[in-house]
Amino acid sequence: MSNPSLLILAGDGIGPEVMGEVVKIIDWYGEKRDLKFDVSHDLVGGAAYDAHGTPLTDETMARAQDADAVLLGAVGGPKYDVLDFSVKPERGLLRLRKEMDLFSNLRPAQCFDALADFSSLKKDVVAGLDIMIVRELTSGVYFGEPRGIFTEGNERVGINTQRYTESEIARVARSAFELARKRGNKVCSMEKANVMESGILWREVVTEIHAKEYADVELSHMYADAGAMQLCRWPKQFDVIVTDNLFGDLLSDAAAMLTGSLGMLPSASLGAPMANGRPKALYEPVHGSAPDIAGQGKANPIACILSFAMALRYSFDEGEEATRLESAIEKVLADGVRTADLLGPEGGSPVSTSEMGDKIVEAL
Amino acid sequence: MSNPSLLILAGDGIGPEVMGEVVKIIDWYGEKRDLKFDVSHDLVGGAAYDAHGTPLTDETMARAQDADAVLLGAVGGPKYDVLDFSVKPERGLLRLRKEMDLFSNLRPAQCFDALADFSSLKKDVVAGLDIMIVRELTSGVYFGEPRGIFTEGNERVGINTQRYTESEIARVARSAFELARKRGNKVCSMEKANVMESGILWREVVTEIHAKEYADVELSHMYADAGAMQLCRWPKQFDVIVTDNLFGDLLSDAAAMLTGSLGMLPSASLGAPMANGRPKALYEPVHGSAPDIAGQGKANPIACILSFAMALRYSFDEGEEATRLESAIEKVLADGVRTADLLGPEGGSPVSTSEMGDKIVEAL
Ligand SMILES: CC(C)[C@H](C(=O)O)[C@@H](O)C(=O)O
Ligand SMILES: CC(C)[C@H](C(=O)O)[C@@H](O)C(=O)O
Repeated sequence: MSNPSLLILAGDGIGPEVMGEVVKIIDWYGEKRDLKFDVSHDLVGGAAYDAHGTPLTDETMARAQDADAVLLGAVGGPKYDVLDFSVKPERGLLRLRKEMDLFSNLRPAQCFDALADFSSLKKDVVAGLDIMIVRELTSGVYFGEPRGIFTEGNERVGINTQRYTESEIARVARSAFELARKRGNKVCSMEKANVMESGILWREVVTEIHAKEYADVELSHMYADAGAMQLCRWPKQFDVIVTDNLFGDLLSDAAAMLTGSLGMLPSASLGAPMANGRPKALYEPVHGSAPDIAGQGKANPIACILSFAMALRYSFDEGEEATRLESAIEKVLADGVRTADLLGPEGGSPVSTSEMGDKIVEAL
Repeated sequence: MSNPSLLILAGDGIGPEVMGEVVKIIDWYGEKRDLKFDVSHDLVGGAAYDAHGTPLTDETMARAQDADAVLLGAVGGPKYDVLDFSVKPERGLLRLRKEMDLFSNLRPAQCFDALADFSSLKKDVVAGLDIMIVRELTSGVYFGEPRGIFTEGNERVGINTQRYTESEIARVARSAFELARKRGNKVCSMEKANVMESGILWREVVTEIHAKEYADVELSHMYADAGAMQLCRWPKQFDVIVTDNLFGDLLSDAAAMLTGSLGMLPSASLGAPMANGRPKALYEPVHGSAPDIAGQGKANPIACILSFAMALRYSFDEGEEATRLESAIEKVLADGVRTADLLGPEGGSPVSTSEMGDKIVEAL
């Protein structure tokens, strides 16, 4: 039997640097744990635009559809700000999400013990924090039609459409309830049902799926504005949060920042099972392409490496190996190894991107 | 000449209690500073629904249009959760905002020195914080058509429409730039121009108004997800933030929570100037109706009293009197007077809603 395939789309900015460290980890697993992958590389985002005039070619899209898992670095950069909306780097990422139908975006917000001091929040508010945000990723205002800039009378109007069908809500709700069962057994669903009809439908469907299929899980509902507030006030009240594409974008970024370690946070975007039983899947760090530090060996590769750990767990059923990798990272942090972004105001001497990767391989 | 008119819509939950304290303050100004208002009272939200079967009658709407300023307490409560969307308490508030055309919602997030310890954020991150969020309040996804729950094939779909015209963006941008000139002279505009065409138009119009009319003000742009993140990380980087209705809802709630004192935050919603030169205006606390503590004399009236201070400043050109009131509140806090919500984990003995009001009158 052939090895499972990994398609690496390193993308822009610090993407290629951090992905270089992931490759070291993949190699280690092949050599030491006999966990071999067929790795191939391709372009996405600005890098693809520079080479092909589009942020994602049809060929790359097809390869992503065929891969057992896709690992993505980051897309975007000021160089591409002038491009038309339709070929901006982000469109490449959004096309992957949409065409692979990756409806369930898992964004853990975890506070690493060694870094608890690093948050802008008080230590007791964040120490031990471990929440999972499940963000709907293929619908809502990101993809709804009509959309565009139109002329009405003598002025322009910008229009986007928030749209959710019952089945779109149901499938992401199920994925949140399934996750909750393996964790704290609590789901909080967030929308603006007091203002938006799409939020009313969201709340109705989540409530129905819960009653019919997941009554053992504790379910609560919160308006998204109150959710933003509660995330800042007392994030530990949450276990799993399920929310739509746009609210999930803001809330998961806020939650990520709470942990004080944006350079540490991975994500998984999962779709329906493929013929081989594995879900369609794309893994990427939550951080962006950080063009200001790109190419300087300063970037923190941990978020991208943790995204590979999520791939081990969710795509390849290698939960134990994922935990091994996560523990290695915790050990390196406990030893005081820090990339520049993890140094507090006291300073200290940072390691480079590749030194951090080497230390993690050593700890493995 | 007759006195300026104030319409008080106390609303639901703790609304009537906190508004009772505002009335004490209004009386004090009439007696001691010869600043007299013609005060009248009416119903909004659940209270109006209970009396008239609608969260805002046409008569009340007309009175609000005629008033020199409207003071609102809070609307909503679990009792009304079962009501149809069209008559929920919130619709009363949204109708006021829309029909009075209150496009510019000013939400200051200020950290009171005496309360800096009370935030979930570290003291150095929030001490001295003073930002102003200007939220567009009459358009966007809150009011865009089409909206509703429709049937498509054999399932339902929930739809809302995000819509902004150039002139809607321009007028709220102007109001943000004007405010910035009186403060730190910096505006940060937030949208999702990387994903939404309405965000592209937003960014274009703000940029154009800036270049043509406010080039002396420093302008920056940020994606709203990054904005949520930066608000949690280092809020003091901001002076004025301008954003749309929905982003403003989430971001202002997150910002409010940073200060650690939600019971302390006022807001002003302003429209175009009326015949007498005063803007159409509604003032309300940022907090909700808090049904869990309603009727117990526990609520903190300060947010509502500070909303009246904003009315003095923005509707009646009484900036000095507004400052007098704000200073009185600071003094009371510095003296250690606390309602229950302002007590930290150490506890202490709280004063009641009406004792807090009395203390503030004394300090005046
Ligand atoms: C890059 C951008 C299109 C993307 C989004 O808005 O979804 C990013 O912010 C994210 O959260 O993954
Ligand atoms: C009560 C509700 C309709 C309202 C809103 O969503 O605007 C509230 O959250 C606010 O921020 O004033």
